[in-house]
Amino acid sequence: MKTRAITGFFFIIVMLASVLSGPYVFTGFYLLLTLLCLHEFYKLLKQSNLSPNLPVGLLNGAYIFTAVALIYYVTPTMSHKLLLLIALTSCLIFVNELFKTSEKPFTNIGFTYLGLIFTVVPFSFFHALGFINGSYNGHYAMGFLLMLWANDTGAYLTGRWLGRTKLFERHSPKKTWEGFFGGVAIAAIAGFIISLYFKELYWKQWVSIAIIIGCVGTLGDLVESMFKRSLNIKDSGGILPGHGGLLDRFDGLLLAAPVVYTYLYFITN
Amino acid sequence: MKTRAITGFFFIIVMLASVLSGPYVFTGFYLLLTLLCLHEFYKLLKQSNLSPNLPVGLLNGAYIFTAVALIYYVTPTMSHKLLLLIALTSCLIFVNELFKTSEKPFTNIGFTYLGLIFTVVPFSFFHALGFINGSYNGHYAMGFLLMLWANDTGAYLTGRWLGRTKLFERHSPKKTWEGFFGGVAIAAIAGFIISLYFKELYWKQWVSIAIIIGCVGTLGDLVESMFKRSLNIKDSGGILPGHGGLLDRFDGLLLAAPVVYTYLYFITN
Repeated sequence: MKTRAITGFFFIIVMLASVLSGPYVFTGFYLLLTLLCLHEFYKLLKQSNLSPNLPVGLLNGAYIFTAVALIYYVTPTMSHKLLLLIALTSCLIFVNELFKTSEKPFTNIGFTYLGLIFTVVPFSFFHALGFINGSYNGHYAMGFLLMLWANDTGAYLTGRWLGRTKLFERHSPKKTWEGFFGGVAIAAIAGFIISLYFKELYWKQWVSIAIIIGCVGTLGDLVESMFKRSLNIKDSGGILPGHGGLLDRFDGLLLAAPVVYTYLYFITN
Repeated sequence: MKTRAITGFFFIIVMLASVLSGPYVFTGFYLLLTLLCLHEFYKLLKQSNLSPNLPVGLLNGAYIFTAVALIYYVTPTMSHKLLLLIALTSCLIFVNELFKTSEKPFTNIGFTYLGLIFTVVPFSFFHALGFINGSYNGHYAMGFLLMLWANDTGAYLTGRWLGRTKLFERHSPKKTWEGFFGGVAIAAIAGFIISLYFKELYWKQWVSIAIIIGCVGTLGDLVESMFKRSLNIKDSGGILPGHGGLLDRFDGLLLAAPVVYTYLYFITN
């Protein structure tokens, strides 16, 4: 428990520092984090006798995140060219498999791509939250993280206090509907408080984002639980002492970041 | 053999008609063809005891192709919004799997996405060839098809005539290096002839496209063979009498279309 508290404290400091240290640190930090998550995803599969193509997958992950991130650093023409090359670099996943002697080449290819979809795409959307107005503004990403943690903590506490009705027992036996609603409520309160300091959005919009994070984030938790159960493992890794793996920590972000980005894009365009 | 010839004749007529009948027919025809290929891909997997999520996969396939195709029909802002919604519709592949009781949920999710990557993405790029200058021009798509067929036929004939050295025996025992070079040469000649009629590009550029189609198209053939071997099947389907399935017919297009589009984008921007 003490290990968990210390890790949690440093985790929060590092996450907030990544947002507050300007665009270059932000981009670099989330590139690194994306690759660590992707690596964890592939390693878990390898432990379960699946053979995703680790080097080509990581190379593609680094390239995709970078090409998408550079939208905000280079000219549009340059950016279009970099994005278009993703079609070529990802072909390598197919071609590389030709030279391997595997019994199930298409399963390997499928899981290699799935890693990119499950980790690189969400983090690219999260990164894009930092640049939603064109230039860097850490408030959206920071607000997102604060509401995500508020939702997690709120769901945990309300669940322990009032939890009776199982939410989705097959995938996550401990989650309850009471915890879910408690989590959404606490996230919404956090969203309202955030709106007093971050004036980029109306309070109703911050609260809407909080509700999206609460609902979609919970779905992300369930998907991550389904993933771990399908591989028969408990924690996604041991990189954070007392907290399991990175994917355990970011499961709420994975589905929620694209949805929140889409919401913000639609209300600002 | 007679069935094969008749089917082949009608296949060529239909393919050329699809290009010559203007943008709406072009878009509609390739949307339909994309969905038929995707359906064939999923059906083949189902026969091999894999369980891709057919309805959600097809729905996403239709949406992705349409959203990408509409880039050329609607305003940029509208188009960005439609493309962004792909992130939401494709989340449904994860969410839908939560409600199924499958032993390997992540294998299903992986193969559902793989179908989109293997069929919808290439056809979206092929469709984009029709609009490379902004408005519809069938010459690029038609030139692509003619060079693809020239390559296939050239490789087959040269291979039968001179074929000695195996190209990649494990995946495709009948293909030879002689056939490969013959196919590229015939495609390059076709490219040169096309340049006499379609003046949008210099002859060197048409010939470059022919060489790309010859090289990358052959890789696409091999990937398709690997796919069928990994599922222990001979033909991808029976929709074209005497010709096997649609994926057999379009395997060369699947990897080549994105590469040709990228080449054209780079030389025109």
